[in-house]
Amino acid sequence: MSCPFVPSCSDDHQFSLQNLPYGIFSVGAGAPRVGIAVGDSILDLSSCASLLTSAVPGLQESDLSSPTLNAVMSHTSAVWKGLRKALSGLLSGSTPGLSAANFVEQSAATMHLPAQIGDYTDFYSSREHATNVGIMFRGVDNALQPNWLHLPVGYHGRASSVFLDGTDVVRPTAQLQKDKDDPKQGSTYGPCRLLDFELEMAFFVGGPENAPGTQISMEEAEDRIFGLVLLNDWSARDIQKWEYVPLGPFGAKNWASTISPWVVTLDALEPFRAPTSAGKQENPEPLPYLKDPNYGSYDIDLSVLIKGEDTEKAEVVSKSNFKNLYWNVKQQLVHHSVTGCNMRAGDLLGSGTISGADQTAFGSMLELCWKGTREVPLGESGAVRKFLKDGDYVEMRGDCKKEGFGRVGFGKVGGNVLPAGAKLVKGEGNGVWVKGE
Amino acid sequence: MSCPFVPSCSDDHQFSLQNLPYGIFSVGAGAPRVGIAVGDSILDLSSCASLLTSAVPGLQESDLSSPTLNAVMSHTSAVWKGLRKALSGLLSGSTPGLSAANFVEQSAATMHLPAQIGDYTDFYSSREHATNVGIMFRGVDNALQPNWLHLPVGYHGRASSVFLDGTDVVRPTAQLQKDKDDPKQGSTYGPCRLLDFELEMAFFVGGPENAPGTQISMEEAEDRIFGLVLLNDWSARDIQKWEYVPLGPFGAKNWASTISPWVVTLDALEPFRAPTSAGKQENPEPLPYLKDPNYGSYDIDLSVLIKGEDTEKAEVVSKSNFKNLYWNVKQQLVHHSVTGCNMRAGDLLGSGTISGADQTAFGSMLELCWKGTREVPLGESGAVRKFLKDGDYVEMRGDCKKEGFGRVGFGKVGGNVLPAGAKLVKGEGNGVWVKGE
Repeated sequence: MSCPFVPSCSDDHQFSLQNLPYGIFSVGAGAPRVGIAVGDSILDLSSCASLLTSAVPGLQESDLSSPTLNAVMSHTSAVWKGLRKALSGLLSGSTPGLSAANFVEQSAATMHLPAQIGDYTDFYSSREHATNVGIMFRGVDNALQPNWLHLPVGYHGRASSVFLDGTDVVRPTAQLQKDKDDPKQGSTYGPCRLLDFELEMAFFVGGPENAPGTQISMEEAEDRIFGLVLLNDWSARDIQKWEYVPLGPFGAKNWASTISPWVVTLDALEPFRAPTSAGKQENPEPLPYLKDPNYGSYDIDLSVLIKGEDTEKAEVVSKSNFKNLYWNVKQQLVHHSVTGCNMRAGDLLGSGTISGADQTAFGSMLELCWKGTREVPLGESGAVRKFLKDGDYVEMRGDCKKEGFGRVGFGKVGGNVLPAGAKLVKGEGNGVWVKGE
Repeated sequence: MSCPFVPSCSDDHQFSLQNLPYGIFSVGAGAPRVGIAVGDSILDLSSCASLLTSAVPGLQESDLSSPTLNAVMSHTSAVWKGLRKALSGLLSGSTPGLSAANFVEQSAATMHLPAQIGDYTDFYSSREHATNVGIMFRGVDNALQPNWLHLPVGYHGRASSVFLDGTDVVRPTAQLQKDKDDPKQGSTYGPCRLLDFELEMAFFVGGPENAPGTQISMEEAEDRIFGLVLLNDWSARDIQKWEYVPLGPFGAKNWASTISPWVVTLDALEPFRAPTSAGKQENPEPLPYLKDPNYGSYDIDLSVLIKGEDTEKAEVVSKSNFKNLYWNVKQQLVHHSVTGCNMRAGDLLGSGTISGADQTAFGSMLELCWKGTREVPLGESGAVRKFLKDGDYVEMRGDCKKEGFGRVGFGKVGGNVLPAGAKLVKGEGNGVWVKGE
């Protein structure tokens, strides 16, 4: 399907008419507002707000001129579906009302953090990742903790340090265990030596908040998931090793997590539903509240690239897929609310590192270099890595393709590693921080 | 010192002129706005905004009519100190400008959550509490983890479920370990059987945000701490036991934390500085970034009361003190930012359960009943408890008294335990949820 207003918007484009991802953009000194990526352009939803609100009961014009997507996200899924239908009609030209004046070029726009993130949670839902980490730290026989196959293990993260694509990160400095084998020797202070990325995706919660004490059921889960983005959950492995008992990761994880700017909805992903690589969940079968009658995930190709000071170009270091998750997004949300936790539109829930069974599909340097025991080649460049070096640029991409459907891409999330002590200043766009002069 | 406008405001009143705690209140259908507790009354800061802004450079009138304290909190500490000075002058009558019309009765007002909480973090900073829990779960020889004396252990919590005094809580239902001694037997689903409170205090971060990648130094710490409240960090011990390895507490902790409505500033607490019960920090000495040249805490008497369906009145079950913390609020904040975590005005940082050395000063039922091995008497009532029962009302109080200074009280934080499956509805005041009909 093509868009008469945007010639670049073919079915092969990552922002085809199947996609229609939401983002917050601005142009020049204009205010940040809601847009939809269409080919190389952006449809400015505030410029056609009355067309949309008249087609979608409940939607307010102010929702579309807001500097965050929280208002759009907080509507019911019926409103999201109505809006998608209205946009599809307008963009394909089957409904009149749009003109070239409603669009801006992506190259002329500044992107902003898509939502005010109330709470950020990170899960640990790839069985391969949890097993790899478990083998490295506890041995093959105790790789998975006893609870892992019974519930989606997760922890609360830090919302203030969720930044947008393009944000540079500073190598953190903190306490490190003095003797790597003997914690009783205490700690020293210094820069992280085992800096890592984590290849993740994350979803934004949507819909009306559940009252405290009320669980979200499996049947309700999809109505509370607005859409997905790419997530690089930057990690400091050596800081984590020392600090994390008994209450979990803290400073190792709270200094930067970066996301891609376009939020891809579940409706856009519908044609790409796929079985998870785990097959059925039978051994053990999940408790009834966690049993998903449509158990599965989405077939989203994921890749991680590194451009170092010692390479000419960005080189692929990992290729994974979202279907590698054992616990899916619905199970994550349902479990998050099982004790009655109130979930609000704009909350962000990360998948955990998405590793596949094959070594080329591992989603972190920790696994790719197997705790520093092997070198990871950066393509054919001759350069190698164990953990990340200062000056490395790390980029993640996500993409869905299927015969008969328009392509659904996630764009990218990328950022540079700056040396310890570097200073950041606000960049263009809310939620973007870059190297200071 | 007395207040000519508020006869109830004596030096013996918990809201004496030494205190001047900030809160958000409303009257009738009026909008929530900023107030200061003065005796049994509230000074409506929006009603005297021009008086205050003319005395305090940088302060805006809109800060005082805001429905949260975030704007006030985000000013520099120079503005907070200027505002305190201006308020002291006006309330004592030494500066003209106020009249009885600027006050409302607390009994006629509705209180609201004091801030939009960006992120909530919970520390684990009482040595006695960490030791008690460690002995119960790992034995006397391994009670404290090797990192505990080197850094303030903490974890990120859930901001959406921080509620206000008066909020009822629903006994959570979730996964529990099937066999208490053998996690390999898997889990069952049911209501929490080991429901608990945690006696804590928490501080609100203030001041301009530090850029990501930038640490807050010990010298800067007090300028980034706006003030303190009481915190009951409701906990589900059995849910936690099953879920918490390896990433820390999750569903056991994310369903309710409740705070008191009045935020007491560090300036109000200045006369109550006191050595911690830990004495000096010498063995081991903290790393330089964590060394506080004025190491100490505040002498704040704390108590926990329970009113059960089997008691006539609320009975004291614990008496502790804020000086029982080993890691103080400055050290908590400094360590939180050591990896470069950006801290924002309105972030809430909990102390962790505040237990003293004596059994009567333990800050949780887990410790008071020593993991269910002894019964805790509810005063002289004849009733006893191990963990919390449905129908229990739990209240925490905090109070500072010192010869020659006005009293500084924290009011209270209280709430009822409702049975599993009970429904909550919004109560009066933002952040208050109560039993539905």
